[in-house]
Amino acid sequence: MYRAPIADQRFLLEHVLGCAQLAQLPRFPDYSAELAESVLNAAGRFAGEVLAPLNQSGDRAGAKWGNAGVTTPPGFKQAYQQYVEGGWPQLAIATEHGGQGAPSVLGTAIEEIWCGANMAFMLCPLLSHGAIEALVMAGSDLLKETYLPKMVTGEWSGTMNLTEPQAGSDLAAIRTRVAASGDHYLLSGQKIFITYGDQDMSENIVHLVLARIDGAPAGVKGLTLFVVPKFIPNEDGTLGKANDLRCVSIEHKLGIHASPTCVMAYGDNGGAQAWLVGEPGRGLEYMFVMMNAARLSVGVQGIGLAENAFQQALAWARNRVQGRPVGLRSESATPIIQHADVRRLLLTLRSGVEAMRSLALYAALQLDLARALRDAGERAAALARGELLIPIVKGWSTEFGAELVSLAVQVHGGMGYIEETGIAQVLRDVRITSIYEGTTAIQANDLLGRKLRLDGGAALRALLDDAERELAGYATSASAAAAPAGLADTLAAAREGLGVLRTASDSVGKQMQAAIDGAFGVSVPYLRLCGVVLGGWLMARAAHIAATQLAANSGERSFLMGKLQSARFYAAQTLPQALGLARVIAQGGASVASANIDLI
Amino acid sequence: MYRAPIADQRFLLEHVLGCAQLAQLPRFPDYSAELAESVLNAAGRFAGEVLAPLNQSGDRAGAKWGNAGVTTPPGFKQAYQQYVEGGWPQLAIATEHGGQGAPSVLGTAIEEIWCGANMAFMLCPLLSHGAIEALVMAGSDLLKETYLPKMVTGEWSGTMNLTEPQAGSDLAAIRTRVAASGDHYLLSGQKIFITYGDQDMSENIVHLVLARIDGAPAGVKGLTLFVVPKFIPNEDGTLGKANDLRCVSIEHKLGIHASPTCVMAYGDNGGAQAWLVGEPGRGLEYMFVMMNAARLSVGVQGIGLAENAFQQALAWARNRVQGRPVGLRSESATPIIQHADVRRLLLTLRSGVEAMRSLALYAALQLDLARALRDAGERAAALARGELLIPIVKGWSTEFGAELVSLAVQVHGGMGYIEETGIAQVLRDVRITSIYEGTTAIQANDLLGRKLRLDGGAALRALLDDAERELAGYATSASAAAAPAGLADTLAAAREGLGVLRTASDSVGKQMQAAIDGAFGVSVPYLRLCGVVLGGWLMARAAHIAATQLAANSGERSFLMGKLQSARFYAAQTLPQALGLARVIAQGGASVASANIDLI
Repeated sequence: MYRAPIADQRFLLEHVLGCAQLAQLPRFPDYSAELAESVLNAAGRFAGEVLAPLNQSGDRAGAKWGNAGVTTPPGFKQAYQQYVEGGWPQLAIATEHGGQGAPSVLGTAIEEIWCGANMAFMLCPLLSHGAIEALVMAGSDLLKETYLPKMVTGEWSGTMNLTEPQAGSDLAAIRTRVAASGDHYLLSGQKIFITYGDQDMSENIVHLVLARIDGAPAGVKGLTLFVVPKFIPNEDGTLGKANDLRCVSIEHKLGIHASPTCVMAYGDNGGAQAWLVGEPGRGLEYMFVMMNAARLSVGVQGIGLAENAFQQALAWARNRVQGRPVGLRSESATPIIQHADVRRLLLTLRSGVEAMRSLALYAALQLDLARALRDAGERAAALARGELLIPIVKGWSTEFGAELVSLAVQVHGGMGYIEETGIAQVLRDVRITSIYEGTTAIQANDLLGRKLRLDGGAALRALLDDAERELAGYATSASAAAAPAGLADTLAAAREGLGVLRTASDSVGKQMQAAIDGAFGVSVPYLRLCGVVLGGWLMARAAHIAATQLAANSGERSFLMGKLQSARFYAAQTLPQALGLARVIAQGGASVASANIDLI
Repeated sequence: MYRAPIADQRFLLEHVLGCAQLAQLPRFPDYSAELAESVLNAAGRFAGEVLAPLNQSGDRAGAKWGNAGVTTPPGFKQAYQQYVEGGWPQLAIATEHGGQGAPSVLGTAIEEIWCGANMAFMLCPLLSHGAIEALVMAGSDLLKETYLPKMVTGEWSGTMNLTEPQAGSDLAAIRTRVAASGDHYLLSGQKIFITYGDQDMSENIVHLVLARIDGAPAGVKGLTLFVVPKFIPNEDGTLGKANDLRCVSIEHKLGIHASPTCVMAYGDNGGAQAWLVGEPGRGLEYMFVMMNAARLSVGVQGIGLAENAFQQALAWARNRVQGRPVGLRSESATPIIQHADVRRLLLTLRSGVEAMRSLALYAALQLDLARALRDAGERAAALARGELLIPIVKGWSTEFGAELVSLAVQVHGGMGYIEETGIAQVLRDVRITSIYEGTTAIQANDLLGRKLRLDGGAALRALLDDAERELAGYATSASAAAAPAGLADTLAAAREGLGVLRTASDSVGKQMQAAIDGAFGVSVPYLRLCGVVLGGWLMARAAHIAATQLAANSGERSFLMGKLQSARFYAAQTLPQALGLARVIAQGGASVASANIDLI
């Protein structure tokens, strides 16, 4: 059964990321390691006791569609009620909007716990959170007053309506139309892939819909954001009549069966009542701001599912007795964790999850600092660093996360292929994460075409400078005699990785100027290189801190030894991926750019 | 819809592998390129017209269990009948046993076609083929007379019964018991994961069961092979009474839903009648001989499914209109194949499939030469090379094959996650291939612990010597001015890869002597290195031949240009994986061997 990875999260927040600094800032005066610990523990209990027990049963039952709408699997409605009563929807909402104002870095840690326990359930609150952020950012006072209070408590949920059959990654192709009608608008069109577009868990569903006002220009500049509630609120806050919208079907998907993926029909009977959010023509802009947070969340989903898979594989490997390890002459069979390759798989899983988790939390912390630091220049630098990292976290944690889950299936052998075992569900669930909220290619486009191009790579160079300086400092401070086995190699591998990434970044920057089509032929390998190397840097930091604590006899010894072991493995067996990726990038994308598509 | 990759297969058989040499050998006097082409075309038609149309419907319906036994999905029984009527079961069976005696290299090509079209269906004939080989190898004349004729025609099918709940990779733990009873034996026990252990397609099912004769020693030396027919044949060849065995349930699996994975109960009513195959205590030995062929087949399944996925992704990418490629200022949206990263994904798929296919067919050819060459020393060398390659083909083609299928899902974007699209099924189906017939770790154990250790790496060095000499010859013969773009790089990358593999092989050989547990901590990375590099060598050979034919204006121009493009991409973006793998191996498995399992 899933257990929240609180020991590692606490170590990262407190020691690796030094989140205590947040308490010095006016925005987070109440933050403390103790507070973080108590929130993590409470979230961990909720995940273990309420969410995780519904994960497999929810997958089997699946969301059901009927003429009356969507029914979620048994237990989901009650769990949602408990989630609302626990006040969890408010956690990371700013205090001025009725939330508890927890920093994003803590909210991110908790999202990982929840997604690890039951991702299909959590998509509803996660999408609601995005809708709240959109209204906070761009909604009128009236819209905020009408919707935010009940959305912040979770009594009402929210959805994001972007995709249409002809408009997936390409939102310019959106056709949903809107016409003014008095104080509101009437909206008509079909949206697909709407997560929790209908459900029976919340009283009302507040749809945020990207649409085109009649007469608006073609392309993305003609897109406007609207609020379209399932039930139209009365002036006294009670629910009024049903709006002209419905879920006409749900998809039969590879995974996340409990999460209804809806086809939504708006305006079949004259037009759904819709209210403008922000200014006409700025819909995509608002969506992009929100999407940054959503992309970080999806990256965290990959991490949570990989952690879940690691836990299942570890338990299996400790309990499954099979064979004798090579080189060990034992009369009786042993648990498979004794076999070298099973250990290799488990260490790949553990260290990979830890590296991804470190980077995701580091990125979230940058977003907190970007809002909270006193100095405007420092805020801007933190924002640039956080935004640079988001596509990396999203792309790397979902691609590598899915690979790790597949390794966890492998640990299970034939039983991994049997649905009852449970690990196959994780493999099915995780596969969506590198697709939705922008495929990995879209993340790589964002990384190269926006994040690196707009500042000429300045934010990345600043990050590499800081990281190299930090690791150089460790090398100086390390006393070779006292250092744990493998620590020097771990640090050296991380430094080498940073150098490889710097060279590759220079190369890809030049390629962007010379032949953009070629550069985009290596953009995904470049994104992965960023992830594997930056993860290696933070693993090295964690190893250095663990060694320092061990030398000082502080901290929990077995945790620190495990962290050193994990970091050592990552440096030895995962970080070397960088060499292959660097070669791909150094050669450039000519073999892609020159390819004749008729001959593929 | 799936189309057999006959153009590439013909090119490989005729030009890359030079299979015409087979006709010079007494065993294959009738082999010719024309014969191979006509058989491939006939198999391709059967795959396209009969097997492929049942693939998705078979997945949806699934095999069903009832008290009367297992029912296969609609259409399967008729397809099996057509398969039998077409004479396909006989194809690769030796003529002295009633088969057509086709070489394994041709049989392997055809297996890829069939598995690409409908792997779940093909598991029945593939397992039957294994059972036939076991009887041919070790069965008494009476057993052969009784069973082979109907098994060779396909009227009766065969199964392999190895696994028990406590005995998966570790067959020493088998508990199924047998006692002598007159001219036969009585067998009792439970077997699990029995593919097509029951079905409604063939008249009789001939189970080959690994069991332990009462009083036999513990461990693998006490295992004996038995024939246990579902219906006991009468002396006149007609079917007699039902044996004491039944399928008590089938598994609910991630994929290959149409293929019943049976729990078999033997001897619930006193003992199933069983007949000894070969000598007592040699059961595992016979299984291992057979398993070599079965492992090659499973590697080919990975290739077939990756080819199927490539075809689906390519068709999707040509038809799905979405967005404008970066750097291309077009007013209207274009098919996504125009996007650089989609081209990268498709080229990864195509070139990966071609590289894996080349190596699998090369390995199969070695097995043919091992039986057919006139000189005993040459036969032994071919056998050693073929056996060396089998775990590489099995491990690499299934692991890399599954990764490629996942890339094909990625090409589909959100639609890839919807079951109706079809590509998700391939992802589910392919996941079993790196598990059954020995997990990748088992293949890597076989490669390091048996194949490389028994001859001190001689067969591998001979292969590397031949390959390096060959590529050096191409470099000399290439006229730089006339060579197609990228050819020199393709050849150079392949040569570099061979050098990297040689160094890594020396390293791993030393590690095996120094610290075997450490060596097994890098054994799977080493297996993958072998695959990626040897695939690169054969892609380079194919590119050289394509360039030569283009220069001579022979062959089909668009095919040859596509092959050059594919080989160039493989060298630029896939082969560089070797650098990371080589680093992992050079560092050795200390981070695995030294790991404290309690701290993982």
